[in-house]
Amino acid sequence: MPGPAQPHIESEAERGARAPKSTGGVAALKAQRTPPADLNEREAMRAYYLTVRRDSEALAAPLAPEDMVVQTMPDVSPTKWHLAHTSWFFETFLLKPHAKNYRPLNETYDLLFNSYYQQVGPQWLRPHRGFLSRPTVAEVMDYRAYVDGAMLELMEEAGAALWQKLAVLITLGLNHEQQHQELICTDIKHVLAQNPLSPALYTPPGESASAPALSWSEFGGGIYEIGRDMDPAGFSFDNEGPRHEILLRPFRLASRPVTNGEFRAFIEEGGYQRAPLWLSDGWNAVSEGGWQTPAYWRRADDGSWREFTLHGEVPLDENAPVTHISLYEAAAYAEWAGARLPLEAELEVAARGLPLEGNFLMPQRDGGAAPIIHPQAVNMSAASAAGDGPQQLFGDVWEWTASSYSAYPGYRAPSGAIGEYNGKFMCNQMVLRGGSCATPHGHMRATYRNFFPAAARWQFSGLRLASDL
Amino acid sequence: MPGPAQPHIESEAERGARAPKSTGGVAALKAQRTPPADLNEREAMRAYYLTVRRDSEALAAPLAPEDMVVQTMPDVSPTKWHLAHTSWFFETFLLKPHAKNYRPLNETYDLLFNSYYQQVGPQWLRPHRGFLSRPTVAEVMDYRAYVDGAMLELMEEAGAALWQKLAVLITLGLNHEQQHQELICTDIKHVLAQNPLSPALYTPPGESASAPALSWSEFGGGIYEIGRDMDPAGFSFDNEGPRHEILLRPFRLASRPVTNGEFRAFIEEGGYQRAPLWLSDGWNAVSEGGWQTPAYWRRADDGSWREFTLHGEVPLDENAPVTHISLYEAAAYAEWAGARLPLEAELEVAARGLPLEGNFLMPQRDGGAAPIIHPQAVNMSAASAAGDGPQQLFGDVWEWTASSYSAYPGYRAPSGAIGEYNGKFMCNQMVLRGGSCATPHGHMRATYRNFFPAAARWQFSGLRLASDL
Amino acid sequence: MPGPAQPHIESEAERGARAPKSTGGVAALKAQRTPPADLNEREAMRAYYLTVRRDSEALAAPLAPEDMVVQTMPDVSPTKWHLAHTSWFFETFLLKPHAKNYRPLNETYDLLFNSYYQQVGPQWLRPHRGFLSRPTVAEVMDYRAYVDGAMLELMEEAGAALWQKLAVLITLGLNHEQQHQELICTDIKHVLAQNPLSPALYTPPGESASAPALSWSEFGGGIYEIGRDMDPAGFSFDNEGPRHEILLRPFRLASRPVTNGEFRAFIEEGGYQRAPLWLSDGWNAVSEGGWQTPAYWRRADDGSWREFTLHGEVPLDENAPVTHISLYEAAAYAEWAGARLPLEAELEVAARGLPLEGNFLMPQRDGGAAPIIHPQAVNMSAASAAGDGPQQLFGDVWEWTASSYSAYPGYRAPSGAIGEYNGKFMCNQMVLRGGSCATPHGHMRATYRNFFPAAARWQFSGLRLASDL
Amino acid sequence: MPGPAQPHIESEAERGARAPKSTGGVAALKAQRTPPADLNEREAMRAYYLTVRRDSEALAAPLAPEDMVVQTMPDVSPTKWHLAHTSWFFETFLLKPHAKNYRPLNETYDLLFNSYYQQVGPQWLRPHRGFLSRPTVAEVMDYRAYVDGAMLELMEEAGAALWQKLAVLITLGLNHEQQHQELICTDIKHVLAQNPLSPALYTPPGESASAPALSWSEFGGGIYEIGRDMDPAGFSFDNEGPRHEILLRPFRLASRPVTNGEFRAFIEEGGYQRAPLWLSDGWNAVSEGGWQTPAYWRRADDGSWREFTLHGEVPLDENAPVTHISLYEAAAYAEWAGARLPLEAELEVAARGLPLEGNFLMPQRDGGAAPIIHPQAVNMSAASAAGDGPQQLFGDVWEWTASSYSAYPGYRAPSGAIGEYNGKFMCNQMVLRGGSCATPHGHMRATYRNFFPAAARWQFSGLRLASDL
Repeated sequence: MPGPAQPHIESEAERGARAPKSTGGVAALKAQRTPPADLNEREAMRAYYLTVRRDSEALAAPLAPEDMVVQTMPDVSPTKWHLAHTSWFFETFLLKPHAKNYRPLNETYDLLFNSYYQQVGPQWLRPHRGFLSRPTVAEVMDYRAYVDGAMLELMEEAGAALWQKLAVLITLGLNHEQQHQELICTDIKHVLAQNPLSPALYTPPGESASAPALSWSEFGGGIYEIGRDMDPAGFSFDNEGPRHEILLRPFRLASRPVTNGEFRAFIEEGGYQRAPLWLSDGWNAVSEGGWQTPAYWRRADDGSWREFTLHGEVPLDENAPVTHISLYEAAAYAEWAGARLPLEAELEVAARGLPLEGNFLMPQRDGGAAPIIHPQAVNMSAASAAGDGPQQLFGDVWEWTASSYSAYPGYRAPSGAIGEYNGKFMCNQMVLRGGSCATPHGHMRATYRNFFPAAARWQFSGLRLASDL
Repeated sequence: MPGPAQPHIESEAERGARAPKSTGGVAALKAQRTPPADLNEREAMRAYYLTVRRDSEALAAPLAPEDMVVQTMPDVSPTKWHLAHTSWFFETFLLKPHAKNYRPLNETYDLLFNSYYQQVGPQWLRPHRGFLSRPTVAEVMDYRAYVDGAMLELMEEAGAALWQKLAVLITLGLNHEQQHQELICTDIKHVLAQNPLSPALYTPPGESASAPALSWSEFGGGIYEIGRDMDPAGFSFDNEGPRHEILLRPFRLASRPVTNGEFRAFIEEGGYQRAPLWLSDGWNAVSEGGWQTPAYWRRADDGSWREFTLHGEVPLDENAPVTHISLYEAAAYAEWAGARLPLEAELEVAARGLPLEGNFLMPQRDGGAAPIIHPQAVNMSAASAAGDGPQQLFGDVWEWTASSYSAYPGYRAPSGAIGEYNGKFMCNQMVLRGGSCATPHGHMRATYRNFFPAAARWQFSGLRLASDL
Repeated sequence: MPGPAQPHIESEAERGARAPKSTGGVAALKAQRTPPADLNEREAMRAYYLTVRRDSEALAAPLAPEDMVVQTMPDVSPTKWHLAHTSWFFETFLLKPHAKNYRPLNETYDLLFNSYYQQVGPQWLRPHRGFLSRPTVAEVMDYRAYVDGAMLELMEEAGAALWQKLAVLITLGLNHEQQHQELICTDIKHVLAQNPLSPALYTPPGESASAPALSWSEFGGGIYEIGRDMDPAGFSFDNEGPRHEILLRPFRLASRPVTNGEFRAFIEEGGYQRAPLWLSDGWNAVSEGGWQTPAYWRRADDGSWREFTLHGEVPLDENAPVTHISLYEAAAYAEWAGARLPLEAELEVAARGLPLEGNFLMPQRDGGAAPIIHPQAVNMSAASAAGDGPQQLFGDVWEWTASSYSAYPGYRAPSGAIGEYNGKFMCNQMVLRGGSCATPHGHMRATYRNFFPAAARWQFSGLRLASDL
Repeated sequence: MPGPAQPHIESEAERGARAPKSTGGVAALKAQRTPPADLNEREAMRAYYLTVRRDSEALAAPLAPEDMVVQTMPDVSPTKWHLAHTSWFFETFLLKPHAKNYRPLNETYDLLFNSYYQQVGPQWLRPHRGFLSRPTVAEVMDYRAYVDGAMLELMEEAGAALWQKLAVLITLGLNHEQQHQELICTDIKHVLAQNPLSPALYTPPGESASAPALSWSEFGGGIYEIGRDMDPAGFSFDNEGPRHEILLRPFRLASRPVTNGEFRAFIEEGGYQRAPLWLSDGWNAVSEGGWQTPAYWRRADDGSWREFTLHGEVPLDENAPVTHISLYEAAAYAEWAGARLPLEAELEVAARGLPLEGNFLMPQRDGGAAPIIHPQAVNMSAASAAGDGPQQLFGDVWEWTASSYSAYPGYRAPSGAIGEYNGKFMCNQMVLRGGSCATPHGHMRATYRNFFPAAARWQFSGLRLASDL
């Protein structure tokens, strides 16, 4: 079972200029990005709440108000929508039911910032989120402050019985907000990437390491237990359980994800032109989308490859894991390489017990350093420290699996609107594992199941090869 | 392992008016709808070939030429396209490579009647199949006769070594043609259903039986073997193998599929209006498609329910299995009923060893009787004869499962164009099991895996409830 | 005022195999394609009715039933729809109101064959006309015979007062049917042109004449009268009137339409790539449609130009008028040529007084000769016979004008459903003048106003240059 | 011939906070919204330039940066796009060709802010203007200042010969900018109207006057001269000429536009449900768009009508002219009222000689008063002062005409990119006359021809009835 990530002490200054006034005075706030081991530690819960909420705002800090309004495809939401929606979550599931005398700041926000909870009320059409210039960014920040103020008051005043309920819901709300932190990163990347001015949010990171040569680790067949039951000590999503037995055949896994350099070889050998390598739907996607490379790759006038990143347009890093590929591209690459995609259970078996370390998102870093929101080549020395097994199973890039997203045996969605969180998406999506450079630090487990449609490319998605023994 | 279906002796007259002249004189043709146990029995192979080919033509017999041209949605192909495409299959994979001196009847047919084999050549756009008035039906029948003539000659002249290859490919070609026989039924039903004149192809079948009360059968958990390796003695598709072990938890299955009467109760309790019952994509499909009932249901002026069938518009049979539902409707019904959909492995475990009997398609019946191409209520006496377990696991309606269509462990698609048959569709589809009233008699196995996108409704698809023990 | 076209005696045999039995015995039917000068001549009206009705069927004679079902774009209707709709017109506006005891053959036909008369009832969606395999062609022919029988009876039995009404409506109905004869030609051409088999309905016509060199005719400015008031002696559509004065500036007109050879020069000088030549909407149409030539032009492997015609795919005739161009292409060509499109009034002024002769549609020709449904180079000797003015103002190709289709001063649409005939289309369309090779002989006047959206290319549309003096 | 609008003295303060620094110090700038009578008066040209440029910025003053980014339909451009594009016009047609040493601020702006000039270079796709968060509003304001600085320098340094060219182009550029001022108003209205928060930019204007009873003015038939040749003394667009003779029949015009109250009666009598009142394309637009009222009308819970305006959501003013209607609605209303739409020539004949007064846009008003950007009921006393003829021919609402937008006789588009300004849109659009409350004061003439597609509703478009005598 994954332990909590190591806490980092972060300075007041790190929290950025946008921090609402109402939460001032938390001078020595200890950064806390996982739930406290004991949910009854109210002070730790408060630090957890404030850290995660401030993290979201730190991500918005380098953006202009204009950046936060734009929607460039239906899957992308404007930054300010994410900032408001995550507050709406606390308002709807915590404050309205449990904070006596709570009055919403604006009744219309309920329509505007409900994402998909059918049981809660009507929703603003998703593809029209970019039509909304109001509330402005400043008004959204006021909304955040308003909700934070009410949340802090509620946390302070709740009796012991209510606290039990609250702690579970707050933890869910903060994990939900962390998921939206990742979407803030991937959505604004899509927005900025459309712009011929190629805006950069952060300075480019330095030279990357060399990728180690690919090797393979073998795993025996047999019955394994995977998944995780929900448990008050430590958070997990409902879709990670119930814990259950599965039967695996012997398999092997590559030591690291496929790199840009390797993927370039696939391209140069005509990978995108050879129908037999592709799933049928994938071939259609290639044809209709005119795909010739992963998303965000660009060809310079001198023929060299470059890629658009949140750090600007930079030369393609051959050693870094390939990213922004669909499942179709992952599967075609694996076919070309004479391998296959791993099952989600295979990755879970390989990852369990490993320390939860990797290149994860740290919106507020020590000394105010900018985050590095791009996959990096695995660090050889760190890798050797982790043992002989597969490296980089956590962080950098989500790894597509051959497993469609479906319910584990015995799974039942919770009742009520909260039950809409995960279960209703268990169709037409594929599972990804391991987290990415945009996944918040502290928001990951070996049992964590991410899922996207097979054609999605705007997430930091990559692949690791597997094969039968 | 499924035995061959019982052979039926069929008269010359049954073969219909469209039978091409070149195959005349097979007066005492023994109907043969499964491959002979020994592929070296050439006469039996010849009978097998002729029976299946004539079956396709028998399905076209009640149609006007005008019916065979129309395409009412991209998924639907005109009847004459099916009749030509199945011949193109023999021309492309048997005659061109193996029949010396074979000259195609028309070079352009290669473009027009390739369905999706990327490795074979360019293809006519699927949604534009209904743009083709030529070749006419008569010309397509000439094409069939031309191919049949060449095939019979090839079968006669092939030496022993070549015969081994041919027999495998012929068997594949005939199973392919049987699949298209099912599509001929479901596609023409879609075409005729759009027409306000409600044309009937066949006379309505008589009174239906009463559905037996629903009961449950229990199955123990543990390791089972499922799937079937490809094997010269008896045909199976590549996607049914390799045979492999899986781990099941204890489960129970309903004794029969859900009936129209039961589904009507779901409708009347607001099933189509209650978002929490639905998968997210399903709710979108309901909203966008304006779905209020299964496909082809109609409300009469007096408020009673009717349904369009290939036998005309008839009163809805409350006892018959509900059909023409998407996976979304199947899953919403199961949710509403407090149950779940079965896994494909559960249905296979339940079905194996059962006799391959059921309401399957018989295009040419004894005495020239019309086929009954609509699900029927299970026959109680037949059911009791089959024992206490689940009834109607074969025939009537395909049963949606909770299993997405993916490769079995160790599966590799065959190389070459034939390898495009199944593997490349292993994404974004769900498995259905058991066959339907439109599945040709003799074209079914307990290991048989059918697959369609979750939103598909024009197949004879239904559901059976399952639950955990 | 246009006189009637010269009558042709046609033999029984010419009327084709599809002629319904009910009108048999009209052995010595005199062909009559314009209304009799005196509407009270019942026998002439009867001949007029039968000639026009048989003409429609003659156009269907070379078609297979499969051809008559297909719809290849929303603007195209299946042949059998035209054959049925024109009968529905007589049923709806003549038989139902005026024939006592008339019972419709099939009540559903009212839904299926109403084209756009909102005041009459609901309509089958135009883009779904190709979904209808039933009624079959044979059933549509029965419908025609049924309506014809009732019409002949009505004409025979009507008293004098009713006859006055009937004669006007019959004349309208037959002119309506003649319009649909033209659409039968252009729609089936679109259908067959999609087919890689390039079917030919008729044998190719022989060698074409050489086009005469282009010259110009001058016309003085001043006030002219154009249009034609509706008048019992001779038919015209409501939109041709009222007759009214207009003011023209001096202008000149080219002696003949632009030829394929001339248009080829425009293409070779990059006409389709030079945005400044094009109207803004035209440039969008070129880009979106990928237009590089007029519709139906094809490039042979040897680089020569060919075109698809109802007579099969043939070498492009450099001398014949260019056709199947949109208004956008016509306007771009004129811009390139330093000229402009004529106003509709200019063409009317030039055409009036000229004999109504030209290459018009003759579905039933003397001696059973096949019609020539393709523009031909103007015949020099015929041209010289017609004088020094512009040639070919009638027939061969409709000539696009710079005039948008709008009401003449004082125009009011007739009341009732018949009023929907023309007036409601007076927006977003451009006027064409002069008739084409697919316009029925006898269905033309110098005041005749045809109209299509600027992007339409499937009609036999061409252009003639004009300029200011 | 229209005289210049009366100049207004405006204070420095009026120019708003966004005025770029580089043009500071124009303390006593005389507001000048029409070209000086003598184009050689450089100081007046300078004032003209600065007034119009500052007017655009005054319109942006009440907007948040977020408002200026959003695009809610392809026809709508973000405010900041308008602000940049109008500057690009000066950069492209004035500075680059004529200002020596001019260096563009950013080379990419050429791609981003070209609207439709094919001859100038590639263009950013119009429907994707809302994808651009960068340049930010502040950067766009910097761009404006940069262009203004270079323009002022160019104006100062140009020799006499160059000045002649410049003065003509500057006048065109400023009239172009004034057109975009109108679009800024109508586009931001569309953006804000989608927002359930109903933002208001300005305080609502006070009580409106009562509309005078409708009366009619008669005009004789005969030959009139309309249009205006381009002329150095006073600006006009190329499409307003050449001046030419037209022939009109006697007609009458309503004394004022149709009011909201009158239009409500049309609605209440089922106007939107009665197909016979509508043009065919109009009826399709009503059905597809679900139109039940003019755009921006809303029904309050108490059943009363309200409308969204730039002054917020307010009760519908029954006396004010109806606006935000398509040509289809205008034509249907006229049909219902037993009248017709006027021809553009009829409106021009009626308007000429009248003083150029009306409710026009004044972005910077005396004393800093907010503009009133909404149609107002005609002021009775002002009306009587103007004589007995039709009132309100200028300002408040553009009046749809029955005239399609086409070239006047003898019109030739200017050569070069500037020639793309008007001529290439002469197809598929209808003419509107008279200007609206969003048309800048000083930017109107009796000969002015505005044009939009018949379905457009987001402009301040209304109608005035006409009929034949």
